[in-house]
Amino acid sequence: MVAKLTEQERAEKLQPLLDGGWSLVEGRDAIYKEFVLKDFNQAFSFMTGVALLAEKMNHHPEWFNCYNKIQVTLSTHDVGGLSSQDIRMATYFETQAKLLRNV
Amino acid sequence: MVAKLTEQERAEKLQPLLDGGWSLVEGRDAIYKEFVLKDFNQAFSFMTGVALLAEKMNHHPEWFNCYNKIQVTLSTHDVGGLSSQDIRMATYFETQAKLLRNV
Repeated sequence: MVAKLTEQERAEKLQPLLDGGWSLVEGRDAIYKEFVLKDFNQAFSFMTGVALLAEKMNHHPEWFNCYNKIQVTLSTHDVGGLSSQDIRMATYFETQAKLLRNV
Repeated sequence: MVAKLTEQERAEKLQPLLDGGWSLVEGRDAIYKEFVLKDFNQAFSFMTGVALLAEKMNHHPEWFNCYNKIQVTLSTHDVGGLSSQDIRMATYFETQAKLLRNV
């Protein structure tokens, strides 16, 4: 069962993401980050990598794309807030972005 | 050269899109539509089809996705408003949506 992050999980797992550029969304228990890649090709490659994981996890981001920018909001609908699924997905966004920046 | 749509083009080419569910964006010369598909798989398939055309045309949508919904805004940056590229892309969005709804 997926559950809301505990205070301890927030300190241990969420805080490193907040230190790495994610921010808490006002009025919602959700996190947000904007990624800027080289161009649309890289932005959509990035989204595609995440989409495959999203489908596998059955956990989907809210995201906006315009050319090389992707603005991502993560939260877990079923628990009404942040869960370990959001941590996993945010971490994967970071991995994908790093991979593409090294291309 | 791409140019802003003329009044005649707006009557002949834009109006059918507006009649088909696209709407003019307030304060911008742009059009908007929300597409609702069956699930994330279909929504992302839809986006992927459009992304390939976008890259080929070098004309990219502004779009937001959450699970099975895609909210699309089209405008042509280089002309500061709607051009024939937006008509072509909006028409392609319609074609892709129809294809997927028939799967």
